[in-house]
Amino acid sequence: MPNDQALRIFDTRFHNPSIFEVRQATDATELLDFCVPANSYFPPPALLSRIQAGLVDILKYYPDYAPVHQANIGQLIGMAPEHIVPANGVTELITQLCLGAEGPILTDTPTFGRWTDLPLQHGVPVHFIERRKDRDFKLTVDDIVARVEATGSRTFVLCNPSNPTGACSSAADIETLLDRLRHLSLVVIDESFIDFASVPSAQEAVLRVPNAIVVKSMGKALGWHGIRLGHGVANAALADRLRARTPYWNINGLAARVLHEVKDFLPEYKASFAKVAADREHLYRSLSELRGLSVYPSETNFVYVELPDGVSGRALRDVLVRDHGIFVRECSNKVGSSENYLRLVARKRPDVDRLISALRHVLRVPEASLA
Amino acid sequence: MPNDQALRIFDTRFHNPSIFEVRQATDATELLDFCVPANSYFPPPALLSRIQAGLVDILKYYPDYAPVHQANIGQLIGMAPEHIVPANGVTELITQLCLGAEGPILTDTPTFGRWTDLPLQHGVPVHFIERRKDRDFKLTVDDIVARVEATGSRTFVLCNPSNPTGACSSAADIETLLDRLRHLSLVVIDESFIDFASVPSAQEAVLRVPNAIVVKSMGKALGWHGIRLGHGVANAALADRLRARTPYWNINGLAARVLHEVKDFLPEYKASFAKVAADREHLYRSLSELRGLSVYPSETNFVYVELPDGVSGRALRDVLVRDHGIFVRECSNKVGSSENYLRLVARKRPDVDRLISALRHVLRVPEASLA
Repeated sequence: MPNDQALRIFDTRFHNPSIFEVRQATDATELLDFCVPANSYFPPPALLSRIQAGLVDILKYYPDYAPVHQANIGQLIGMAPEHIVPANGVTELITQLCLGAEGPILTDTPTFGRWTDLPLQHGVPVHFIERRKDRDFKLTVDDIVARVEATGSRTFVLCNPSNPTGACSSAADIETLLDRLRHLSLVVIDESFIDFASVPSAQEAVLRVPNAIVVKSMGKALGWHGIRLGHGVANAALADRLRARTPYWNINGLAARVLHEVKDFLPEYKASFAKVAADREHLYRSLSELRGLSVYPSETNFVYVELPDGVSGRALRDVLVRDHGIFVRECSNKVGSSENYLRLVARKRPDVDRLISALRHVLRVPEASLA
Repeated sequence: MPNDQALRIFDTRFHNPSIFEVRQATDATELLDFCVPANSYFPPPALLSRIQAGLVDILKYYPDYAPVHQANIGQLIGMAPEHIVPANGVTELITQLCLGAEGPILTDTPTFGRWTDLPLQHGVPVHFIERRKDRDFKLTVDDIVARVEATGSRTFVLCNPSNPTGACSSAADIETLLDRLRHLSLVVIDESFIDFASVPSAQEAVLRVPNAIVVKSMGKALGWHGIRLGHGVANAALADRLRARTPYWNINGLAARVLHEVKDFLPEYKASFAKVAADREHLYRSLSELRGLSVYPSETNFVYVELPDGVSGRALRDVLVRDHGIFVRECSNKVGSSENYLRLVARKRPDVDRLISALRHVLRVPEASLA
């Protein structure tokens, strides 16, 4: 069991420590991980076997160029290759878009940290539109347009579904929004978690306006975060401009091979999302039964949870790692959230039952010891 | 055997087709590859086994952040982590440096295509300083400084050793050059092929000036190009600025694991370079014996060869693939070179002997059929 010194790894200026650091600090090889939002039902073992079989070539040779990846991603998501920008994880696109944005940027909060931190770090003016808990963290089109106008923002970013709240805008709302924000320099819809939602992607809708792009992490849906894979979808001119600024060979050989092979596993891939959504509903219901927690509706593969007043999310996280081998994410490093919130990933039922049992145990501890 | 239609894959606007495309077009699974500059003596099978054993974790989890890679790369090359900028292949750094450069840029030619093509593509003024064959493609410090002044360049890029000519500047020349170019915005030394050379890296020298950086591909030395790994070395302030602009998680899980594991294979790693250099000397001598070829001294893991007048490098490449299963690189897409030149990678002796035999055969064909 780790000592408190080891748990200082959480005092990172980064997004979160990697699982490798957590394992090393905690001596735990079998951490139950509610932090990394992986897909429990993908990839299937047969896909792993194919990657293993191809490893010598994957390691040895230069990967393909963008056109090959555009075709593969396009086939996976049902879009023409000309609209696709392959990326070394969605973070590569977020970095490019933030650093090259016409400011001010308006972004919803809380959100993925890169959307708030990159503009602040690089001196691009940024404003926030806060998702409020008294509205289940949902935003209306009128709220957004009014805030764009009030702040004079030229770039608008919406995480849909929202990470970490799980709230989601409808397809109709996104279409209205795109139409009402046609005068902006750029509108970005970050759909990294949309595969688990009941709403469709805006990938077709953004093609109807000149100034909008969907960006997406592919690691969440594929269940493999280590490969670094993401993409953008936009009209051909915008996609061309963005692609021209990304490095050659930005997609590594492992990610390229996964893109190539996954086409043979489409039924399993698509079926996995509904299974994850069912797990999320089980997680939601189970958490809702715990006295003192506020649990919010989610359209993604995680659930946003508010802890009882006076309970420190940091302390709870450390106790769960130390005494229960369970790794959770508290949200103190997110603008517009706090350590009073956890983001808990949908896992299979036995794992959730272990989490609930641990939470039941820990939250009965007098609050002073957690503060 | 491939038909001429299939060989149109070489008509690419990119650097070169990938080996995967060449194989597919040629139906050849056992192409003898003199194009991709891989290290024949690294990695050892034991390192591959470790990567295979770790594949499930490598695929599944987010890789570490820059500090972990800085420490690992620093240990590998004997530099403090604060000076290291880890990159998704050297091309990520080249793209950033070219797009963010204060122009005009002056770059030596012929060189790695990204250094000439990116400025041209993005409207950054760029000038060239030509390596001349009557000087064995070597440049003097005076030549360079005079050309910087004549062009009013603010950024200077030198590929050392030169790719594709193999010519090399001495450590003393590089130090003098850095000193005389302290007034520039930036000086870049691209040392992607220096591990195979007799001259040392300029990684210590660049720390003594405020405006210089060494950038380096790591795939050549590691023998694994598919993993995408490179780095920069500069003073801490410059390294910090560059690192701040690279995306989080730009190093994928596979590359991160290789960096972690390679530390246990340092003797094999370092010994491999001398073996490659010996193979290069064998290749150089063998090519020199072929009537009509001009072969130039090289400090790297490839040799630059001028074909006899009237012999088309493109036609020769196609014949070698089609009739001999040998894949070579002609240089028509490099500024300052032409299809009259090949860049041939140092391989083990039996492979070189097969190449020589094929060249002997093909070059006896009447020139008209190759023109």
